[in-house]
Amino acid sequence: MSKLRLEPMPLTAVAFSPYGDVIETTGNTPRSINQGTTQRYDDLARIDVGQDEGRPLLSVFVTQPQPLPLRITMIERHPLGSQAFVPLDEADFLVVVAAPGDDPKSGDLRAFLARKGQGVNYAPGVWHHPVIALGHETRFLVIDRGGDDTNCDELQFGEDEDILLER
Amino acid sequence: MSKLRLEPMPLTAVAFSPYGDVIETTGNTPRSINQGTTQRYDDLARIDVGQDEGRPLLSVFVTQPQPLPLRITMIERHPLGSQAFVPLDEADFLVVVAAPGDDPKSGDLRAFLARKGQGVNYAPGVWHHPVIALGHETRFLVIDRGGDDTNCDELQFGEDEDILLER
Repeated sequence: MSKLRLEPMPLTAVAFSPYGDVIETTGNTPRSINQGTTQRYDDLARIDVGQDEGRPLLSVFVTQPQPLPLRITMIERHPLGSQAFVPLDEADFLVVVAAPGDDPKSGDLRAFLARKGQGVNYAPGVWHHPVIALGHETRFLVIDRGGDDTNCDELQFGEDEDILLER
Repeated sequence: MSKLRLEPMPLTAVAFSPYGDVIETTGNTPRSINQGTTQRYDDLARIDVGQDEGRPLLSVFVTQPQPLPLRITMIERHPLGSQAFVPLDEADFLVVVAAPGDDPKSGDLRAFLARKGQGVNYAPGVWHHPVIALGHETRFLVIDRGGDDTNCDELQFGEDEDILLER
């Protein structure tokens, strides 16, 4: 039995860059629009719905909170498109990711703690655990790829691997 | 001088259908995903970024509240793509719209009051006033069309038209 304790890092644009984008206004410069009534922070994520058959899909996920420590038994990826999560409730949440590749190991996993005002956008093919809400039910606006192609691979970790996400 | 008093209607999917989509979970049926931890309300808006040169643009607008009554002096449209607004703060907000067409009149304007849990998606070419926050600064996640083409027309109402948005 191999044991892994996964501790979340703060979510920053630099630390998360191998996996995608942090969606946040902090650190970005807005431009003033609408007669000065609005500051527009433009183009905060590389939304990629692929060529040809893909289209942008806007959905809402209503996610139940998970208790920690949480056993990580699987991850998934969407090879054909990006997937963005932006919380619609004030809530911290956890993301667990591994860089693209056909055979990620538990040692490749990284966890990040997203704070109020932050969302994430997974680049196409980035492995990730389903989003982990904390404390209370959380609504997320999700922008991913719509289309008829199969766009989800799952990877189950072996029963000899004990991966615990802590805080 | 022509006077128009514009009073907001409740925002419902049916009433708003000539202008686009109401983005909300209410009235939609989710499916259970992620081992039952998440209810997914799928495909809540017709995001249309056009063909060829368009791409989905994800931005955040930070909008100052407007006092009511508010004088409506102009509207705008984005002929090449849809534009979705989903509040990231708990807030009511107002939308003022007119159906597509090259010469909307003040009498064509309609106002809607969006309540907590509601967003809107303007269909391509739908005339609208810049989003009107109420009470406090409000952040909106905006999904519209990125690209180099000109994608904003403005229409100024004449000085002989006195259009007041009330509540």
